[in-house]
Amino acid sequence: MHNEETIFTRIINREIDSFILYEDEYVFAILDIQPLSKGHTLLIPKEPAPSMDKLSPKSAAALGKALPVVCRAVMEGTGAIAYNLIQNNGHEAGMSIAHVHIHIIPRYPESTHSFLWKCGKIDSDEATHLAKAISSAIK
Amino acid sequence: MHNEETIFTRIINREIDSFILYEDEYVFAILDIQPLSKGHTLLIPKEPAPSMDKLSPKSAAALGKALPVVCRAVMEGTGAIAYNLIQNNGHEAGMSIAHVHIHIIPRYPESTHSFLWKCGKIDSDEATHLAKAISSAIK
Repeated sequence: MHNEETIFTRIINREIDSFILYEDEYVFAILDIQPLSKGHTLLIPKEPAPSMDKLSPKSAAALGKALPVVCRAVMEGTGAIAYNLIQNNGHEAGMSIAHVHIHIIPRYPESTHSFLWKCGKIDSDEATHLAKAISSAIK
Repeated sequence: MHNEETIFTRIINREIDSFILYEDEYVFAILDIQPLSKGHTLLIPKEPAPSMDKLSPKSAAALGKALPVVCRAVMEGTGAIAYNLIQNNGHEAGMSIAHVHIHIIPRYPESTHSFLWKCGKIDSDEATHLAKAISSAIK
């Protein structure tokens, strides 16, 4: 086991009620009970990995494969015009439950949720160094 | 083809220089040249789908499978303590380039980037209705 049992494991095990939208062997989707917008959905691997970097290849592939399916259904079921996906890893990044979950957040003309997107400009020397460090970390 | 050629297709085709961190048959990863934080990375399917709901099952599974691999490398290469994944679909959701790309945004003790995360409370009747609409939209 990756970590302690979270609320998501208890939901999969039907120990806690939830609005289940989708389920297959590896993943399931539920409505977020504290929605940022109507139809705010969580897509969750059944494997209780605490963060994306710790998810197994099999679960990760299944999670990816389910994404377009669930996104299409959320759009169709809500009539949303656009949507954001957010997934937080580590408490410092706003992760509240240590079991990977992807937020699918529909957007409507009246939506006000937003990101503080204060981007910088890449420094070429630093980027060269970083690119080497990151790409060489991929085995 | 899904849509017009974007800058990402030109990067894969090596028509534009970029800091390429990873590449396999279906996906590639580069440094974002307008980083929110050091090591801000984009993971991109080669298939030029304009939004997640339009991505093919094969590309979506490959994208999912690459996520933990690239996230691990970004963490290792940058020394970040946490990270956020963001993926925007539709111009109204802040999408700037109409070719699916997942932002991997490392977080450091000094990071200030954040979301305006103003969540509501789910309405049980509305949720029941929505859950039916979304789950029945999944074929």
